[in-house]
Amino acid sequence: MRDDLGLDAIFRPKSIAIIGASRKKGSIGREILHNLIENEFAGAVFPINPHADYIHSIKCYPSLAAVPDPVDMGIIVVPKDQAVQAVDECGKKGVKGIIMITAGFKEVGGKGVEREEELVKVFRRYKMRMVGPNCMGVLNTDPSIKMDATFAPTFARDGNIGFLSQSGALGVAILEYADDLNLGLSMFVSVGNKVDIGGSDVLEYWAQDERTKVILLYLEDFGNPRKFTHLAREIVKHKPIIAVKSGRTMAGARAASSHTGALAGLDVGTHALFEQCGVLRVNTVDRLFDLGQAFSRQPIPKGKRVAILTNAGGPGIMATDAVVSVGLQMAQFSDKTLSRLREFLSEEASLQNPIDMIAHANAENYKRSLEILLEDDGIDSLIVIFVHPVYVDAKKIAESIIQVAKKQNEKPILCVFMGKKHEESGIEELQLAGLPTYLFPESAAITLASMEKYNRIKNRPEGKILSFKDIKKPVTQKIFDRALTENRERLTDLEVSQVLAAYGIPMPKFVLVRSLEETVRVTEQQNYPVALKLIAPEVVHKSDVGGVILDLHNEAELVRGYMRLQDNLSKLPNPPQKYEVMVQEMVKGGKELIMGMSYDPSFGPLIMFGLGGVYVEYLKDVSFRINPLTDLDAREMVTTLKGYKLLEGVRGEKGVNIDKIVEMLLRLSQLIADFPCIKEMDLNPFMAFPEGEKCMALDARISVHNVPPEEQSDEVKPRSSSRAKSNPNVKKHV
Amino acid sequence: MRDDLGLDAIFRPKSIAIIGASRKKGSIGREILHNLIENEFAGAVFPINPHADYIHSIKCYPSLAAVPDPVDMGIIVVPKDQAVQAVDECGKKGVKGIIMITAGFKEVGGKGVEREEELVKVFRRYKMRMVGPNCMGVLNTDPSIKMDATFAPTFARDGNIGFLSQSGALGVAILEYADDLNLGLSMFVSVGNKVDIGGSDVLEYWAQDERTKVILLYLEDFGNPRKFTHLAREIVKHKPIIAVKSGRTMAGARAASSHTGALAGLDVGTHALFEQCGVLRVNTVDRLFDLGQAFSRQPIPKGKRVAILTNAGGPGIMATDAVVSVGLQMAQFSDKTLSRLREFLSEEASLQNPIDMIAHANAENYKRSLEILLEDDGIDSLIVIFVHPVYVDAKKIAESIIQVAKKQNEKPILCVFMGKKHEESGIEELQLAGLPTYLFPESAAITLASMEKYNRIKNRPEGKILSFKDIKKPVTQKIFDRALTENRERLTDLEVSQVLAAYGIPMPKFVLVRSLEETVRVTEQQNYPVALKLIAPEVVHKSDVGGVILDLHNEAELVRGYMRLQDNLSKLPNPPQKYEVMVQEMVKGGKELIMGMSYDPSFGPLIMFGLGGVYVEYLKDVSFRINPLTDLDAREMVTTLKGYKLLEGVRGEKGVNIDKIVEMLLRLSQLIADFPCIKEMDLNPFMAFPEGEKCMALDARISVHNVPPEEQSDEVKPRSSSRAKSNPNVKKHV
Repeated sequence: MRDDLGLDAIFRPKSIAIIGASRKKGSIGREILHNLIENEFAGAVFPINPHADYIHSIKCYPSLAAVPDPVDMGIIVVPKDQAVQAVDECGKKGVKGIIMITAGFKEVGGKGVEREEELVKVFRRYKMRMVGPNCMGVLNTDPSIKMDATFAPTFARDGNIGFLSQSGALGVAILEYADDLNLGLSMFVSVGNKVDIGGSDVLEYWAQDERTKVILLYLEDFGNPRKFTHLAREIVKHKPIIAVKSGRTMAGARAASSHTGALAGLDVGTHALFEQCGVLRVNTVDRLFDLGQAFSRQPIPKGKRVAILTNAGGPGIMATDAVVSVGLQMAQFSDKTLSRLREFLSEEASLQNPIDMIAHANAENYKRSLEILLEDDGIDSLIVIFVHPVYVDAKKIAESIIQVAKKQNEKPILCVFMGKKHEESGIEELQLAGLPTYLFPESAAITLASMEKYNRIKNRPEGKILSFKDIKKPVTQKIFDRALTENRERLTDLEVSQVLAAYGIPMPKFVLVRSLEETVRVTEQQNYPVALKLIAPEVVHKSDVGGVILDLHNEAELVRGYMRLQDNLSKLPNPPQKYEVMVQEMVKGGKELIMGMSYDPSFGPLIMFGLGGVYVEYLKDVSFRINPLTDLDAREMVTTLKGYKLLEGVRGEKGVNIDKIVEMLLRLSQLIADFPCIKEMDLNPFMAFPEGEKCMALDARISVHNVPPEEQSDEVKPRSSSRAKSNPNVKKHV
Repeated sequence: MRDDLGLDAIFRPKSIAIIGASRKKGSIGREILHNLIENEFAGAVFPINPHADYIHSIKCYPSLAAVPDPVDMGIIVVPKDQAVQAVDECGKKGVKGIIMITAGFKEVGGKGVEREEELVKVFRRYKMRMVGPNCMGVLNTDPSIKMDATFAPTFARDGNIGFLSQSGALGVAILEYADDLNLGLSMFVSVGNKVDIGGSDVLEYWAQDERTKVILLYLEDFGNPRKFTHLAREIVKHKPIIAVKSGRTMAGARAASSHTGALAGLDVGTHALFEQCGVLRVNTVDRLFDLGQAFSRQPIPKGKRVAILTNAGGPGIMATDAVVSVGLQMAQFSDKTLSRLREFLSEEASLQNPIDMIAHANAENYKRSLEILLEDDGIDSLIVIFVHPVYVDAKKIAESIIQVAKKQNEKPILCVFMGKKHEESGIEELQLAGLPTYLFPESAAITLASMEKYNRIKNRPEGKILSFKDIKKPVTQKIFDRALTENRERLTDLEVSQVLAAYGIPMPKFVLVRSLEETVRVTEQQNYPVALKLIAPEVVHKSDVGGVILDLHNEAELVRGYMRLQDNLSKLPNPPQKYEVMVQEMVKGGKELIMGMSYDPSFGPLIMFGLGGVYVEYLKDVSFRINPLTDLDAREMVTTLKGYKLLEGVRGEKGVNIDKIVEMLLRLSQLIADFPCIKEMDLNPFMAFPEGEKCMALDARISVHNVPPEEQSDEVKPRSSSRAKSNPNVKKHV
């Protein structure tokens, strides 16, 4: 394995110094040393402490400089005010990697922030890599390394799961859960404040690690969501990534004045990111382990068809409920399967899925049934349920399941052994044999649904970021430059229509006027019917103030309409001082949609698409993706709406031109990528028409901001290639 | 406690005979005897077996007749073909209650069904009460009874939870879970096939039982949903009922041709029932225990405001996410609370909710913080999180929480101790002290949300079933009688409008015509604009076939419209042979709603209400309630819609007349209650207008069926009193 990242110094060191090692039981400096020794670290360990000669029977050195041999990694556990000094000593000694356990940096605010800045300066000077500060350490179960550089009381079994936790405290619990489930890890890292090594580095490292087959993440934030996306998209083709992301983004709150922003809110950025790069998201740590158990030890199912085998009706029903409600299907058994089952199962057994063998089913019944089900091509995965009758030996049941499972690697088998885990329950044996075992049927069903989703992610075609050649960038550049120069937050309606036109997004024809006379003059006969719309900077939602008059068929109606508009204005508590009126070609029919974009400080531009109209706006049937969109992203935004059927056409009604909508989203995406100064866009209503016809924005708003610095430095050039390039200057943290 | 139900013979017998007692270890006949003896049943036990003199050192009798003393209860565990005979012997001996463990009855089909019919005849003859068949027994922890009449390996701790399971197999697991959580039960019953004693009887019995404070149910079906509703509505005022209901109803499937039916589908009946009677529903057995732990041992919170106290940031964030996402609120601390906390918590602690005391927080920190939070009036409930740092004694933390919790009974305290339960984890101590303790923050948040919901259920005003005096029942009766006599499934449009009018539900004025000439003749000048609608029995969705022509303003438009209608008809693959045309007053504006009713074989009439229009129909924003509706039920149906805001009026638009909609739902409810022959109704679209104005059905369909027998015998008279009377002839099962 190549180590371009320099992370071998952290995960595979040959020698370790513990700066701040201690004799005091229960102290972190003692527990880490103890864990390294107890779990038989394959390299050398040097305790550093000026006040001791030997710790844990090992010679102790007063300073790092006094160590006679080279040191690959330093674990720092000294008090916070000595921590930076310790790093400096590591640098001087030629240490390549540091685990900074010590806390009291940015996370405590105030002086801690300064201390962290100091820390960064020092370790960068020596070009070292660092995990932490404020972390609980690193662990590698590789038999040739066997490093437990944590202060957790539990080591981990050798296995194929890489586990990253942003919370150190949770890390302790995570190792206990894994142990309780007999679940093996390849490596574990608690990344703490992530001054250097963050999620992206670790992902990249584990992507290349042969022992790591599954990656589990507990995240609280993303340092660099673009880099994360870029890496994760590639990795999930080979290794599933499953994540809990806690702490929701407050993106949308700030933008309450705009529809797009108001709909965005909360967690949409994270959701979009995970969907786009194919990371499986779960909401809780126990679910993370439910999935981890199965992904690490069972094959991925090829489809949605589940068979359930049980010795009790109630749990069978619950499992069926669960399977159906997570979107999987109950398998239909072949005639052959049914007749083979009938040969030996009791008359009282129910052979249809779920198969209820009833309470007196024995180990042989489980074994033969499983063998038969595994051979049925109409089944993609199995849930095996066992409830313990007094007169049945649970361990024998477990043993028979293990025997069958060992002989195949095509279909996942998930076990549900209800009751308590104890010596006679057979659960321990199942877990050790690599059979994920749950206490309740729902956990198994939810896990299978995620595995089936992963099967689709792995096999999904690769999306492309399209580049439209017919766009007019220079004209558009001028418009934005002018707005920024004039310190305007919003583009005028004329500018908006010009920008959209330059990127091939149509709007109805219109003319801006300032008086009734002008209105009548510019509206030629062939243009009727028209609509009148109030254009005033103070008025964001025109229709709320009676600023939209629709469907004027002739000059008389036009005159009355204009006067009604003025009348509505005069009734406002604060009528706008300066305004114009837009005389717009009246567009009739079509399905009302909404498209938009808002800027999230951590994810950058988020594109939004949804069904429009006042009903749907309140029901919030919208989807979000992080810009740039691939063609598949754009299509998914449309097809995953709850109301997608309405776009396809219902009750004999013609469907709308979906391809055109997808094209418009991609053009919007290109516009947004070309102009990072766009802060918010709102194309509402956006009207779609039947297949073969175009679609258009009836109304649109664009606001701009000065480009945030990250945006400028982050050289993501989505248009020049199908993949964002990463910039070496970008900080290497997630 | 009075025993009108005769259930004391089952739950509090003085003497028990085990018919089919056995010496064979692992056999059910031995395990039940062993459990009764081992757990020191307070009465006499008589083993019955012709082939043994003594079992478990107790004198064994060859037959029940040979027992010299009276026997209150018989537990039957003989093979299925001897079971009915055993019941007969019990009857002859004067036994009052029976637990029929033996399986092989209705659940296996075929001969089992006959066997069950035989069984019912025999036990009814002797007026005995029976639990089962096909069950795993009954348990009562009352110290004066101490009866473990189950074959499960686990007895239960003395406690205040009554647990009913419809699945015997699950019962075994349930007792293990309860034991693992140190959760005490008052009684447990596995009801099996429920030939006699079902959920309603047990509810009624536990309602009066002083030891039972919380009722947990695992149900697979309802025998008599009306009786259940009636009882549960009363009980939840004093004792929370929490239920898992597995196995979804297939009600709606059958009615695919009608909107209402299609929307109904699946699980709506159960959902409606639980909502109406205030039963808390959870989807999984583990959630049942999450709630059971807290409801049985902690006070009910007075509101939504939660305080979180933690020694680790990550879990604090997860808990916050969870609290907000279940609809609770993060409490705002008072200045006094903040300054008191600041006095002793470390500088690095974060005092805002969630309070993160960071890893080195000790038992004293937990104790003082908790005391302060309990005194803040802005807090309704507390979640206390602890993650175990190596240098902290978890048991001491647990002890300090217990000390504080003991001193108050105002605010619920839920603990989250992350990691594994083991000797040093403190979890055992917390559970024994009555502090619900979870491994993950989400479980605590979900539980608190249910407790808060229960607080609202307990305090909600009692709904009334209204009886409108202005209705015309006799006229309506005639219409339905005629349809039934003529064997018609559907009422004609004229009949529909007459029925609705008789119950005060308006429709627009209309005339039915058969020719263009007639159309022109009947449409008088003042009636314009009008709509034309095709009326043909074959056509269910008129608008799908071009059978609705709207907005005709004068005679010329009327003629053209009529011809267009004929033209549309001629294009159909199978044009209707006979049809009429409805000339209807054109109603403009208003909000489009939908109301309806479908008949569910187990729940009876289900009333449906929702937002209308093609969009919303696909998004399924609808609510269901079981008839009859109280005024509060009807209002809830309206206010709990996701799109309720749209009815209240958005963006300055006027809201609709909610009171009128509620009245219409209640009139509909009365109509449906008065005429059980109504099988389906569909008022679609139903238009609502602004406050002060009326609302009306623009189109409606009613179909009828011969009244199902249960409906006739079940003398629920919702109109004569606010509470359904129960009929002594109705079978006493849920």
